[in-house]
Amino acid sequence: MTETKFLLPESAIPERWYNIAADLPNAPQPVLHPGTGEPIGPDDLAPLFPMALILQEVSQDAEVAIPDEIRDVYRLWRPTPLYRAHRLEQVLGTRSRIFYKYEGVSPAGSHKPNTAVAQAYYVKQDGRTRIATETGAGQWGSALAFACTLFGLECKVYMVKVSYEQKPYRRSMIQTWGATVVPSPSEDTNSGRAILAETPDSPGSLGIAISEAVEDAATREDTAYSLGSVLNHVLMHQTVIGQEAIAQMEQAGAYPDLIVGCVGGGSNFAGLSFPFLREKFAGKEVEVLACEPAACPTLTRGPFAYDFGDTSQLTPLVPMHTLGHDFVPAGIHAGGLRYHGVAPLISQLVLDGFVRAEAYGQNDVFSTAVTFARCEGIIPVPEAAHAIHGAVQAAVAADEEGRERTILFNLSGHGHFDLGAYDAYLAGELEDFALPDEEIERALKAIEPLPKPAVSV
Amino acid sequence: MTETKFLLPESAIPERWYNIAADLPNAPQPVLHPGTGEPIGPDDLAPLFPMALILQEVSQDAEVAIPDEIRDVYRLWRPTPLYRAHRLEQVLGTRSRIFYKYEGVSPAGSHKPNTAVAQAYYVKQDGRTRIATETGAGQWGSALAFACTLFGLECKVYMVKVSYEQKPYRRSMIQTWGATVVPSPSEDTNSGRAILAETPDSPGSLGIAISEAVEDAATREDTAYSLGSVLNHVLMHQTVIGQEAIAQMEQAGAYPDLIVGCVGGGSNFAGLSFPFLREKFAGKEVEVLACEPAACPTLTRGPFAYDFGDTSQLTPLVPMHTLGHDFVPAGIHAGGLRYHGVAPLISQLVLDGFVRAEAYGQNDVFSTAVTFARCEGIIPVPEAAHAIHGAVQAAVAADEEGRERTILFNLSGHGHFDLGAYDAYLAGELEDFALPDEEIERALKAIEPLPKPAVSV
Repeated sequence: MTETKFLLPESAIPERWYNIAADLPNAPQPVLHPGTGEPIGPDDLAPLFPMALILQEVSQDAEVAIPDEIRDVYRLWRPTPLYRAHRLEQVLGTRSRIFYKYEGVSPAGSHKPNTAVAQAYYVKQDGRTRIATETGAGQWGSALAFACTLFGLECKVYMVKVSYEQKPYRRSMIQTWGATVVPSPSEDTNSGRAILAETPDSPGSLGIAISEAVEDAATREDTAYSLGSVLNHVLMHQTVIGQEAIAQMEQAGAYPDLIVGCVGGGSNFAGLSFPFLREKFAGKEVEVLACEPAACPTLTRGPFAYDFGDTSQLTPLVPMHTLGHDFVPAGIHAGGLRYHGVAPLISQLVLDGFVRAEAYGQNDVFSTAVTFARCEGIIPVPEAAHAIHGAVQAAVAADEEGRERTILFNLSGHGHFDLGAYDAYLAGELEDFALPDEEIERALKAIEPLPKPAVSV
Repeated sequence: MTETKFLLPESAIPERWYNIAADLPNAPQPVLHPGTGEPIGPDDLAPLFPMALILQEVSQDAEVAIPDEIRDVYRLWRPTPLYRAHRLEQVLGTRSRIFYKYEGVSPAGSHKPNTAVAQAYYVKQDGRTRIATETGAGQWGSALAFACTLFGLECKVYMVKVSYEQKPYRRSMIQTWGATVVPSPSEDTNSGRAILAETPDSPGSLGIAISEAVEDAATREDTAYSLGSVLNHVLMHQTVIGQEAIAQMEQAGAYPDLIVGCVGGGSNFAGLSFPFLREKFAGKEVEVLACEPAACPTLTRGPFAYDFGDTSQLTPLVPMHTLGHDFVPAGIHAGGLRYHGVAPLISQLVLDGFVRAEAYGQNDVFSTAVTFARCEGIIPVPEAAHAIHGAVQAAVAADEEGRERTILFNLSGHGHFDLGAYDAYLAGELEDFALPDEEIERALKAIEPLPKPAVSV
């Protein structure tokens, strides 16, 4: 058997993040202030974010240097391994080669610390001592708690109440790393108290938790707000993944003709694919596939439009593929993919034809995930299982066409905190949640009054 | 900052296991048949184990070749990384250097697959198609399920009922990897049915689960029995850990003067320490420390005596440090360390003064585990947290003496399935379980009628 893992020394941790905004053939539309309809400027964001991150958000430089202090923390788990999926190839009987980059080796078990560590560093540099954030199932909250403990920052996590109660282990991780976590809606903010006054039994939502975290940060000078996906700088921080993968594929003596990732907000997808898209812009032949759940088909069925990033309409208006800010996806187990929108940078790439998207039902996805676990060993996080499924489908299609492909996908995390979902799948209890057209049409009505992007959709 | 991780290529996966039995200055006492009092021979074990493993169990060769098929599976996660604990050293302010070998990168999250994969391979070579085993909290059961799926073997796991109900995630892992898991006592064996007839609500015990798995294997020709610790061949399979660590310490330009591991049955401890003890036998100066819980102080307070390996008195008589086969340790969270005995090879090494043992209370251990998680990131499995605590105590003592030590400990797994224990610690709800002398005296009465080993104790 040839090599299974391709490893890099710590000296190969990238020294720069890649900022794809500098290379986009069509510049992304500006983010708008919902009141004035005018583009948002750095000063609008200053109460919430450190200026270094705001400047990254609007930067047109193709590369941004990674401070040594951040690279030193990355050493705890980076470079992450890149695997050749020998045993999966054998089980499929495919003629294609399948590789995957594995981000589950980070202490928090996902790619999220790549940006959490960077954000914590810049908040500390900015002189603030505390970060507030929201979390759904807890993957982002745990990554930020981990990052904050390393930089000696306080961290307050507003965790959607239903997850706080149903996913106690992610909550425990957050606390073990020294952060404070409260179920949202909480008594700690005006927005939380207002909701509790009206609905004492509210199960919470990501929209409510965002409101609480933003209010917390906006009303305390020592506190910054932090987001785990969607924003340009967050996606940029993830590009260490793809840069390492390029070096590792070279080690493997191969170059991928297909890059696959799952898309929720878009950060793990961007992390792997943006450095390869840079090479595509420069003439390399490489196809890029975004995988999403059929229960929340933002890229495959949502228009490109201006919309709010959150349900509560607190954020600026963002130009993106969206199902409408009040679309409520069914309760699939890939919680990180249950987002009505997608990062503007990825939306633009899909709009311009550089990225193709596919949507899958969750029983198909779990079937592939179990096959993968039984031959490669790693039990994947349900979100990343969409990427595995996309890769497997592509290999099967290539075999039918008599093609030999080289496929690389991002395995963004392990599923150690999602085993209940595997239980449900194995017991035949998973629903596929077919989505009626009317439901999407209804949800899209919410964005009709909003400004339209300058491009035709 | 100098390097944090020391990595080896797959070509550095050891080609041989190290069999310490060949080098022990005092040969271990024989294992005895409880009925006849005569030493057990290979034929006694043949109904349960493949002959290749039986021959390894009694081998006097210092090295045993690792078949390529096993090394190919090891490639999925081996060589495992060795870390320099820079951030822990800083937090302690110690002058000593602290390193750790991390086995939590295996798909099952612990060192257990090192032997599970080997055992599955030999069972398959032997022409059997199925393995039966018992598991307590599920760490061993999940490792064996993982190994069996890779070799296309059926696997049946008898899981102690109380754990089956309280630790659903380990059970889910076992099932995701395609094995069958039943709560023990079960309706599937005579011993299980007998207990259920008498005590329908029995919470089960490791002793009962062993009885069920042994009966299953003994009554089916297609089935072998498999054990996750204690036996010579199991400990030998783990020596890939220490062999890799020797090469990695060389990479780091250092040699440890103290090796630290936690001891339950003894397999992770043996895995790291035996290759270093080989060098100690050859003249190197290296101290070896075994860490155990104060609630189950087998090495520090149990005599060296013949005793049964299980509560139900089904196993042969084993010469070891023991607290008596009916000693029931308090319900500490490091479930893997709740064993009344210790592997004979380790017992002999302690008896002969090559290994020193210390026992710690669980609040001290969790305090160290949380400190570790907050600076190194990884949340340790409670068992391995005993080794971290031992290493930290040694560094602190060295600082007091003005010594600079080089300490290496085994971090045998992550704590993703033990976060409830961290919750309890952080809430101040952990008991330390001080163990009264009378309780040990009472338990030791059970072994008084048994034969005595030839050495004075």
